[in-house]
Amino acid sequence: MLLEAIYHRPKLNWAYAYDHETIHLRLRAKKNDLTHVYAFAGDKYIWDQSKELIPMAKAATDELFDYWACAIKPSYRRLKYGFLLQSGEEQIWMTEREFTKERPPLPDRLFEFPYINPADVFTVPEWVKDAVFYQIFPERFAKGDASLDPKDVLPWGGEPERFNFFGGDLQGVMDHLDHLSELGINALYFTPIFEATTNHKYDTADYMKVDPHFGDTETLKKLVKACHERGIRVLLDAVFNHSGKTFAPFVDVLEKGEQSRYKDWFVVREFPLQVKDGVPTYDTFSFEPHMPKLNTENPEVKEYLLNVAEYWIKEAGIDGWRLDVANEVDHQFWRDFRKVVKKANPDAYILGEIWHESSSWLQGDQFDAVMNYPFTDAVLDFVVRRTLDAEDFAHAIGKQLARYPQQASEVAFNLLDSHDTPRLLTLCDGNKDRMKLAAVLLFTYSGTPCIYYGDEIGIDGGQDPDCRKCMEWNPDKQDRDLFAFYQKIIAVRKELPALRTGSIHFLVAEAQGSKLAFERRLGEQAVLVLVNNDSMVQTIQVNAEGDAWINRLDGKRWPAVSGTLSVKLPAYGYAILTEAK
Amino acid sequence: MLLEAIYHRPKLNWAYAYDHETIHLRLRAKKNDLTHVYAFAGDKYIWDQSKELIPMAKAATDELFDYWACAIKPSYRRLKYGFLLQSGEEQIWMTEREFTKERPPLPDRLFEFPYINPADVFTVPEWVKDAVFYQIFPERFAKGDASLDPKDVLPWGGEPERFNFFGGDLQGVMDHLDHLSELGINALYFTPIFEATTNHKYDTADYMKVDPHFGDTETLKKLVKACHERGIRVLLDAVFNHSGKTFAPFVDVLEKGEQSRYKDWFVVREFPLQVKDGVPTYDTFSFEPHMPKLNTENPEVKEYLLNVAEYWIKEAGIDGWRLDVANEVDHQFWRDFRKVVKKANPDAYILGEIWHESSSWLQGDQFDAVMNYPFTDAVLDFVVRRTLDAEDFAHAIGKQLARYPQQASEVAFNLLDSHDTPRLLTLCDGNKDRMKLAAVLLFTYSGTPCIYYGDEIGIDGGQDPDCRKCMEWNPDKQDRDLFAFYQKIIAVRKELPALRTGSIHFLVAEAQGSKLAFERRLGEQAVLVLVNNDSMVQTIQVNAEGDAWINRLDGKRWPAVSGTLSVKLPAYGYAILTEAK
Repeated sequence: MLLEAIYHRPKLNWAYAYDHETIHLRLRAKKNDLTHVYAFAGDKYIWDQSKELIPMAKAATDELFDYWACAIKPSYRRLKYGFLLQSGEEQIWMTEREFTKERPPLPDRLFEFPYINPADVFTVPEWVKDAVFYQIFPERFAKGDASLDPKDVLPWGGEPERFNFFGGDLQGVMDHLDHLSELGINALYFTPIFEATTNHKYDTADYMKVDPHFGDTETLKKLVKACHERGIRVLLDAVFNHSGKTFAPFVDVLEKGEQSRYKDWFVVREFPLQVKDGVPTYDTFSFEPHMPKLNTENPEVKEYLLNVAEYWIKEAGIDGWRLDVANEVDHQFWRDFRKVVKKANPDAYILGEIWHESSSWLQGDQFDAVMNYPFTDAVLDFVVRRTLDAEDFAHAIGKQLARYPQQASEVAFNLLDSHDTPRLLTLCDGNKDRMKLAAVLLFTYSGTPCIYYGDEIGIDGGQDPDCRKCMEWNPDKQDRDLFAFYQKIIAVRKELPALRTGSIHFLVAEAQGSKLAFERRLGEQAVLVLVNNDSMVQTIQVNAEGDAWINRLDGKRWPAVSGTLSVKLPAYGYAILTEAK
Repeated sequence: MLLEAIYHRPKLNWAYAYDHETIHLRLRAKKNDLTHVYAFAGDKYIWDQSKELIPMAKAATDELFDYWACAIKPSYRRLKYGFLLQSGEEQIWMTEREFTKERPPLPDRLFEFPYINPADVFTVPEWVKDAVFYQIFPERFAKGDASLDPKDVLPWGGEPERFNFFGGDLQGVMDHLDHLSELGINALYFTPIFEATTNHKYDTADYMKVDPHFGDTETLKKLVKACHERGIRVLLDAVFNHSGKTFAPFVDVLEKGEQSRYKDWFVVREFPLQVKDGVPTYDTFSFEPHMPKLNTENPEVKEYLLNVAEYWIKEAGIDGWRLDVANEVDHQFWRDFRKVVKKANPDAYILGEIWHESSSWLQGDQFDAVMNYPFTDAVLDFVVRRTLDAEDFAHAIGKQLARYPQQASEVAFNLLDSHDTPRLLTLCDGNKDRMKLAAVLLFTYSGTPCIYYGDEIGIDGGQDPDCRKCMEWNPDKQDRDLFAFYQKIIAVRKELPALRTGSIHFLVAEAQGSKLAFERRLGEQAVLVLVNNDSMVQTIQVNAEGDAWINRLDGKRWPAVSGTLSVKLPAYGYAILTEAK
């Protein structure tokens, strides 16, 4: 037994309340090292009557480790626990202090989950589990009201550049809700819509005002209302790490320097504000002088921004916030942000933009989820960059699932591209089959999938600004085959709850392999997802109950013979199967 | 290189801000596996110009692992980082995603410490680093005002029982401050002093009222003032997990059941409140019907308790709170508690009673420290129970130091006994030499040591209630030798800052060994602590600079010959040495 590989630590992803009654325990061990693992658990105040061995199961695996898990409902919300580890004949007990051959006679040196306090339970909005998101970059999605056009607006469909404008606006979105309903999405994420000088609006001038080139508060309210009538939720982008250089308090500091009453609204290292050798004398996003970092620790700034967060929920009825550069803002701010937002709308979705490990934000006191770029990378490394084989991909997914509490994975925001990355089609070198295969992985994963506007009709584009092309509204120029594919995969996801919140178990994922099969299971429902990530035809065989299985994407039946289901998949083919009953 | 043993995860004890400029990184590896470890770090926005290899050093070791550490001051408060691990000729790079042979070409998959936000920096009160605490159980420390005696009070010095009273009070403490000053302590921790029915007062009746058997608000204020005049800080016990059964809101619920306006102040599973088969129908501390759990999530309860916390700081000028059963109260409550307390007194010490791993409370947003029972156990296991040898003890200390951010260890509340455990002298079977040796380990460790009242004059006693005997004030019955020892060890600790906040490095700690030597170092100051945990005389040899070293406890000089210092120690002997200059 490799003791150095065994890891458990209270809280985080290792011991957490899943709901008001249930504690999830997880333990990491060297891959394939342990044969059985048990939690040894009870109530410390009545240890002798309550102590119990609870079997744990292998819930995930990565390249080095297995992750064992169990769920426990303690009678009095309290849990004292250790582990019994077995590897063949060998067995070892694990306490908080040590590994021992002897069963711990007393509970006092075990681990402890002292009490399930409801206030600390990480509770996520249920609707997100069933959501399919669509990301809109408003300046480039659709033009609905030419009277709002910025000056020097260019004809729709021109080449996007860092500082040019094409006149997209909120009325444009309203005019195309049929397209979105037809596609089947039920949630929209808008990049920023508040007044700013740039086309991307990440340099806010006025947080309380819809950008006049996009519309006004009334347009926004109408849009949200229209979305809600169609069952579509709306998420806006909160750019609270920094403002723009035209934000009035910053203008004041630029003008008055240390005399400005707003000088503590920013993080100034040295007055006057200037740029020396490319480095501003004040903290900024990156080293961008026009994106001064807001001092979110200043109570005035905090109050101002929390009021913004609350205002748009109450005024426009939005369903949550995506938080830009969320990792550079203080945790204290986000804790209060969560209180304000959830009070205004208990169902609001709080989504942080964090690209790296996000445990510190996913404990229930701050965000519901983060933008799941590690998932993006896993899919792209497997399908596009070909740096991961099937086994590596399964390991990347296992590591990802093991990293956070289950509820965080259930509402993870999964994406394959965005305004910050090249387009999926371009990443796939225009190969639609590979693009679809990547999308199948997105739509069969836990969490909420997001489509970047236009991906569904074949828009391409490299890194920013090329990934921010105008949406194509001429049906003849739209890729309707791709649209039908996205419609179908969305519909299949909606039909099958197991694809949304079921467990994930890999069935085929070999080293150097390009065949992948995994099961999603929720209660009685089992869904098999089969993927051929290769240019040659391959047949995937998996153990399967029943006589026949149906590919939900095309309705084709595949017989299961003597417990084995064989499915022949074309190059870059895939199938999503349920048992034929 | 054993990859399964290597562990790093952002935040917690692995990557944290030590102050507003400094990030500490730590990495765990299999013991003796790596020869060199470097952090590979820079600013992600100017990676190429800023990336740097920073050597890490082995900061602690336990039975399985080495813990490597370094401190980094990034130019712009941001850090992207990975690690370079070397084991002889072999070298491996570690990113957040994977281990690789190749140097990561881009920073994007490295770990990240996004920004040092001052609000998130874990800041502890400086005075605690220099404090020596003394714990007082007021009913048993000293009787100063007979007019306050409870009825049925027993003559001072009788046998303590669970429900008897001897009439100790606050005036009694005031009358004996000379004893405390003479001893040399500079901080007092009082178990609860607010109105309650029991002798221990953990069943609060009125949080706003000093127990009338102890005195009143004026007595408390006088006492705190008198302490402050002597440079003694005062910590009170906040029993906020539960109230007593005579707490007015609970009395109201007992009387009126569901009709009580206080019914949501508690955690009632079933009305009416009663005890069924030994289990109350409401949540309690343990299963004690007279200690109903307070619903600290109820805004009314929260406001009430936070007001209590603030009131005694403002009214009586206390220097902090020790939090009873802190682990069973919600984190949200403690976060707000910290805000209120630190606003009322930025220097207040917030000390949680937690016996197990406490990382979730030691991140800067809740407690400054916890009662360090794992340290207690390590010392007692080594000196008293003899279940740890010298190497095991060093490992237990290494594990303990690696577990929390450095600032938490610097103000850890270290104790060898308390009102909740048998007395140290009794644990040592009355062997004063072993008792003193244990105390030497306490007084030469990081954090703040605490003496349980009476230990210093030889009071003994087994488990509660026996450990709560009346203090002995007859000088003829006091162990003055022990008192002189405690005076001396306190004085030596005060003289040598390295004993308080220096690094710890074990020099002698062998398997099956009973000799222990370690160095505490702070800047230029090195202190050697030598301990012979055995009944035979032993000589401890360590490498040492200079010609001679002086035992600060008795002034004796020990020559260092050719770089080796040899110190002969009697049975259970010890020495605290500094270089003779």
